[in-house]
Amino acid sequence: MHPLNPALAATFRPPVMEARRWLEGLAFSQDRPLINVSQAAPVDPPPEGLRQAIAEAALNRPEAHLYGPVLGNADLREAVAAEWTRAYGGPVAPGNVAITQGCNQAFCAAVATVAGAGDEIVIPVPWYFNHKMWLDMHGIRAVPLSCGQGMVPEPQAAAALITPRTRAIVLVSPNNPSGAEYPAEVLRGFLDLCRARGLSLIVDETYRDFDSRPDAPHQLFADPDWGDTLIQLYSFSKAFRLTGHRVGALVASPARLVEVEKFLDTVAICTGQLGQVGALWGMRNLGEWLAAERAEILRRRAAMARVMAQMEGWRLKGCGAYFAWAEHPFAESSASLAPRLVREAGVLLLPGTMFMPEDDPAGARHVRIAFANADTGGIEALGARLSAFGRAAAGDLAGRAGGA
Amino acid sequence: MHPLNPALAATFRPPVMEARRWLEGLAFSQDRPLINVSQAAPVDPPPEGLRQAIAEAALNRPEAHLYGPVLGNADLREAVAAEWTRAYGGPVAPGNVAITQGCNQAFCAAVATVAGAGDEIVIPVPWYFNHKMWLDMHGIRAVPLSCGQGMVPEPQAAAALITPRTRAIVLVSPNNPSGAEYPAEVLRGFLDLCRARGLSLIVDETYRDFDSRPDAPHQLFADPDWGDTLIQLYSFSKAFRLTGHRVGALVASPARLVEVEKFLDTVAICTGQLGQVGALWGMRNLGEWLAAERAEILRRRAAMARVMAQMEGWRLKGCGAYFAWAEHPFAESSASLAPRLVREAGVLLLPGTMFMPEDDPAGARHVRIAFANADTGGIEALGARLSAFGRAAAGDLAGRAGGA
Repeated sequence: MHPLNPALAATFRPPVMEARRWLEGLAFSQDRPLINVSQAAPVDPPPEGLRQAIAEAALNRPEAHLYGPVLGNADLREAVAAEWTRAYGGPVAPGNVAITQGCNQAFCAAVATVAGAGDEIVIPVPWYFNHKMWLDMHGIRAVPLSCGQGMVPEPQAAAALITPRTRAIVLVSPNNPSGAEYPAEVLRGFLDLCRARGLSLIVDETYRDFDSRPDAPHQLFADPDWGDTLIQLYSFSKAFRLTGHRVGALVASPARLVEVEKFLDTVAICTGQLGQVGALWGMRNLGEWLAAERAEILRRRAAMARVMAQMEGWRLKGCGAYFAWAEHPFAESSASLAPRLVREAGVLLLPGTMFMPEDDPAGARHVRIAFANADTGGIEALGARLSAFGRAAAGDLAGRAGGA
Repeated sequence: MHPLNPALAATFRPPVMEARRWLEGLAFSQDRPLINVSQAAPVDPPPEGLRQAIAEAALNRPEAHLYGPVLGNADLREAVAAEWTRAYGGPVAPGNVAITQGCNQAFCAAVATVAGAGDEIVIPVPWYFNHKMWLDMHGIRAVPLSCGQGMVPEPQAAAALITPRTRAIVLVSPNNPSGAEYPAEVLRGFLDLCRARGLSLIVDETYRDFDSRPDAPHQLFADPDWGDTLIQLYSFSKAFRLTGHRVGALVASPARLVEVEKFLDTVAICTGQLGQVGALWGMRNLGEWLAAERAEILRRRAAMARVMAQMEGWRLKGCGAYFAWAEHPFAESSASLAPRLVREAGVLLLPGTMFMPEDDPAGARHVRIAFANADTGGIEALGARLSAFGRAAAGDLAGRAGGA
């Protein structure tokens, strides 16, 4: 094969697909099924009403099969604007909203508007791997920002990393992979920093529907000038179980959406029509259902914290939305521990090394547990399996020591 | 707003969306409706069986709402591989096929595997505007290659444009916007040139299903080493009227698909499941239907050629698949002519300037007519309107001359 784009060739492979390969050739019994806490994705389909709404559109709405506007259907943009205005206490107009083929694409579009090869973007570590991959393949330097207390990054630490090539700071709250919910005043601090330094602030709120706080997670949209700095990202996939339809959103100034439209026109043309139908139906009809989903995930979060507190040697560093970020007690790197946990404990989780720069030793010591797909009983079973694995590992060591 | 990525800011805006803006504030009567030949898109939904297959999956297949594999569903990859092997007379395996969110995204993925900022890609002019936009926003120089006889580019002319920064040559056949069907030996010549010079050859066959030639349009897949050089792109949107679902394909070597997977994972995660269901149902059930669609489009093509031959001063330069590329007889640039045709003739078509470098005077003299959306009667009406517009313009000139 002829030479590859070196930036893409140097980009690491998709972690979730790599983790799936660890399952090849393995069989799990019904008594002891695989506990898969590797991916932040619903495993059940959306409620029947939403499925019917999609089926109905497929059968009877000709335009549901044809191109729509590049920035999304007007009805869905209006619904997002109205709900954001209500939820965040600041005016967001339909002209501030772009619909994208999933939230990953919203991130790609946001980055395209701010940075090119040779530029720098500051991102907290641990990071969401797809963000890091996109920056790597475009020759944009991802500048790692260490988190402080509770896995929350600090604006003053970020300030020290800004150079003349810095174009933006990216935050994910609630965070993937740490689960941390960033306090409103921290987000405000980042907005002020970015504005003062002429940077954009990209805030990915994919998991906003599962935030434990009852009120708005921040007041950034109440700032009349938010559009000069803020780009917010959202996903309909988690709220309404639409991962297979690829529907997300990007909220920014109308001037920035002119640029976003160029990007989306070339890479997408439009977001899938049936996914937009489903997202709109969900926004109009699934408010109560989503509240119950959130309550269930918060119960799972509590179960995760309770179970983890009883596990010898483990330390829970962050826990929220879909994720726990935990320090494991083993001498081995998470990179080899994770595939071994599949084989020996029937647990699929992702190693911290997938979320950190290679030269950061914290990656080897941590794992990400996407606990939201396990119910309370499943989370207890997960804890029991990891604890048994730990005892077996300790026994092995003792046995080997005895035999030496 | 804070500074934008200059490469994106310098990229032109989506032409189809710009053309839609020409319609704002205008009303068209039922007697004289707008003739819209601006976009290469079906205007009717897919056949009922396909719509039912999608609705059925939405209602009853849970996995149709959830993430699928990054490179596409196994059944659809297998179907493409089998059909390609049959149609092109060379073995194509499922491991050669990636499913993408439309063919534009397949192009973006292909380019990502070969080039980055500062590199060059040779593309014939007139070009497909989304290709040019993607290269511009990534800082990849689009090197224009003039076409020869019949709007067909020549390998020896391309050879003269290759520099140490050249990474690929892009061909679209049947062509958008010219409609030209590139002869098999021309494609072979480009493959040989690219191989000899260590370049990739990207061949976009979005319109392959409407090629007028009865047999395979080329024998490139019969070359046992095609994977070292060739990247082929395809769209299910035109064949099965699935534009609103975004389903395309990229065919390349397995080694290149490792890189494609990285790109698609970050920008897409996966292609929409229901679109893949529809594409597969179409491949399995719509062979005869598609043959009839092709026959109808070939009839429209013949009507277009016949009508154009009778239009005073117009010259048909290329005609095939969905498109006619025509030289108009007016003294005015196509850039101002096109919006005037909307207002004065009720005809929406795209000016040649949208498909050419600014410094190429041919853009001003040509227009693209996406005739496939008009039936034979509609094409005759289009011809009548353009001719009447021409007579009125000549009358205006004569009138003004008389008054001077």
